[in-house]
Amino acid sequence: MKIALFNQHRLGIVQNDRIYDVSEAVSWNAHNPQESLERLICSFNEWKPKLELALTNSDSYPLTEVKLQAPVPKPSKILAAPVNYLNHQSEMNAKFNNAPYTIERLGLFLKAPSSIIGPGETVLLPYKDRRHDHEAELAFVIGKEAKNITAAEAGEYIFGYFALMDITVRGEEERTWRKSFDTFTPMGPWIVTSDEINNPHHLQMELWVNEELRQNTNLSEIIWDCCTCLEKASQAMTLYPGDIITTGTPEGVGPITKGDCVRIRIDRIGEFSVNVDFKDDAV
Amino acid sequence: MKIALFNQHRLGIVQNDRIYDVSEAVSWNAHNPQESLERLICSFNEWKPKLELALTNSDSYPLTEVKLQAPVPKPSKILAAPVNYLNHQSEMNAKFNNAPYTIERLGLFLKAPSSIIGPGETVLLPYKDRRHDHEAELAFVIGKEAKNITAAEAGEYIFGYFALMDITVRGEEERTWRKSFDTFTPMGPWIVTSDEINNPHHLQMELWVNEELRQNTNLSEIIWDCCTCLEKASQAMTLYPGDIITTGTPEGVGPITKGDCVRIRIDRIGEFSVNVDFKDDAV
Repeated sequence: MKIALFNQHRLGIVQNDRIYDVSEAVSWNAHNPQESLERLICSFNEWKPKLELALTNSDSYPLTEVKLQAPVPKPSKILAAPVNYLNHQSEMNAKFNNAPYTIERLGLFLKAPSSIIGPGETVLLPYKDRRHDHEAELAFVIGKEAKNITAAEAGEYIFGYFALMDITVRGEEERTWRKSFDTFTPMGPWIVTSDEINNPHHLQMELWVNEELRQNTNLSEIIWDCCTCLEKASQAMTLYPGDIITTGTPEGVGPITKGDCVRIRIDRIGEFSVNVDFKDDAV
Repeated sequence: MKIALFNQHRLGIVQNDRIYDVSEAVSWNAHNPQESLERLICSFNEWKPKLELALTNSDSYPLTEVKLQAPVPKPSKILAAPVNYLNHQSEMNAKFNNAPYTIERLGLFLKAPSSIIGPGETVLLPYKDRRHDHEAELAFVIGKEAKNITAAEAGEYIFGYFALMDITVRGEEERTWRKSFDTFTPMGPWIVTSDEINNPHHLQMELWVNEELRQNTNLSEIIWDCCTCLEKASQAMTLYPGDIITTGTPEGVGPITKGDCVRIRIDRIGEFSVNVDFKDDAV
């Protein structure tokens, strides 16, 4: 099932080229979409038949006529993997570091939930004289409270998958700071529930800046797969339904600037794009 | 006004040695204390007379007979200052780094909200063979949405102050990871609203491990004061009511281990202690 937020935080189910407004079927509260989403996640198995029924009797719209929004608007945390593809690890260490970075050495880091934006919105760059990069990533949302979970158990804690761009300004500040500016976490186009994608680690992920293909990787090249990321994260901290883990970016990371359109696509999940501009007070 | 959460997330006002249960006066929802706190923060000027009236006709208890809880239980983010006292900067750079660390170079970092605990609770150390440190800090909670605020304006965005311990495991992982383990952010004993503390940067802060005084600093020695931290943070990301900024620790940082009792005190704010143990599966 493809679960989307659209227009004024309505709940939608996407089928083919249409979106079905199923808000009424689950007493969705559009004023608090994160809390509503967490209730949906926690009750999904029970509510799934209601949603399927709602598909037969709800209003629907062509996808092209609605405004999609970030499918997880306000998680209690976003955990992110720093160097989780071998080729990106080489690329980063060659360009930016003397000491080699590995995910085993660094662990995961946090991004601010306030940095989330949705499809079609605009990434605002804070600096005119520094390099800002796109990073295409597979992300997933936690389905139930997870603490000290092993990778073997992790599958049942993943509610669903989506695409995420981990926008980054290069420099010496803390990684968590350089990646947490407002608008630095575009995500979308919707959540594809994990009953539809049993194993995402064979899907192809691509990212374009304007018409140029910058990143193009099979997710099988990941170092810590989704289940391992969840294991490592849950051994350190409690993960809650609606929290996000984003699994790192492969090679091909490159700069973006004002006027660019950045598009990400993951097989079987979907695609979305965002625009790029300078922040009003960019320095 | 000293605003506390106690027992099962009741709302209390502390006066002298007693706590007044004012939950009814503001329709407090103990099942969602963070949301209730954010409503209180946003409506404080309007609700303050109601709270003052409630002090005259509410049940009250000796402080020694209630269980205080973390005064901000689930903020949407915790921003923290890495090396914000000159003496701590020297101490850290001498012990752990080749490249000198400064707050101007590093910016702020994030701690996971899931790491919060309250007074009297227990810090659980994840490693038996690594060093875990106490870090005594002055923290504050945001009073209204803040974006691109200058230090000169920042005072009116600070709702109140409290004491916080930024527990840390030393090592090579991301700072945000090493400080985000469950139980690594003890805070308390309550929020002292900023109408009672106009300028906290002359107060004395002390931290003891068992009976040994480890940290003892006047807050005037801070590098980025509260208003500057708020300015820098709000220029990068939107701060919401109920978010936390913790302002970094002075010299005297040292190790803690199983069996320790760690106590923090800040003039005019108050004091609390936590216990230390190993996590069940500490390695």
